[in-house]
Amino acid sequence: MKDDCLFCQIAKGKIPSTTVYEDRHFRVFLDVNPASKGHCLIVPKEHFDNVYDLDAETAGKLFSLATCIARAMCDALGCDGLNIVQNNGKIAGQTVFHFHLHLIPRYEGDGVNVTWTPHESTSEELEKIRAAIRKEI
Amino acid sequence: MKDDCLFCQIAKGKIPSTTVYEDRHFRVFLDVNPASKGHCLIVPKEHFDNVYDLDAETAGKLFSLATCIARAMCDALGCDGLNIVQNNGKIAGQTVFHFHLHLIPRYEGDGVNVTWTPHESTSEELEKIRAAIRKEI
Repeated sequence: MKDDCLFCQIAKGKIPSTTVYEDRHFRVFLDVNPASKGHCLIVPKEHFDNVYDLDAETAGKLFSLATCIARAMCDALGCDGLNIVQNNGKIAGQTVFHFHLHLIPRYEGDGVNVTWTPHESTSEELEKIRAAIRKEI
Repeated sequence: MKDDCLFCQIAKGKIPSTTVYEDRHFRVFLDVNPASKGHCLIVPKEHFDNVYDLDAETAGKLFSLATCIARAMCDALGCDGLNIVQNNGKIAGQTVFHFHLHLIPRYEGDGVNVTWTPHESTSEELEKIRAAIRKEI
């Protein structure tokens, strides 16, 4: 636990949150400044800065849990869709540097923006990138 | 396998892709129309429409794998950040209705938009939503 980390404090219950679910490893709570109605965050109780930092076992348990929470959100909220978002680095929109997964219910006209411009790419470019990533796995 | 599903065809190798990684359960390949350089997709070989459909075991294995791929991408691409995005439903931006996880490397000025307006919420509103979701878990 990092004393100066907001999500460590929330995960461990030292700062109160609107908790939807809690077990030994995770806390799921409502974002106090939601993107849309029912916006949930899943945080591990152990501190990890980001996805690079997260161990495989915790990652696995976390995303298994995410499927259950997603189904419950869908049933409870009657939303039209759902974005799962996880940001790493300031440029990617990460504001709290404790790994967290956003579950953002979607409704018509909610103003949430998860979009990008699809770019053209050549098979030569893709092959070069593939080889570079492959080498690091 | 669904015969009319593009990602079933790619996952099973019936349609070629720039494959970064493959095992018995998953294929990781480069998006042909990337949001940014090195944009990867992780797809299960089994067909699931979306996250509601995904079983806990496959979900767990998939996100464990995602941490490895994320680290390899970071090392290979030298990106400044990374968004992990998973869309469910047309309104959420899902265009292929076979579960897939986007790993989108981020660079200065890349034009990728994963943002939302944080809204105000009262503790009464949050408590009502919490109770509704909690009931469905």
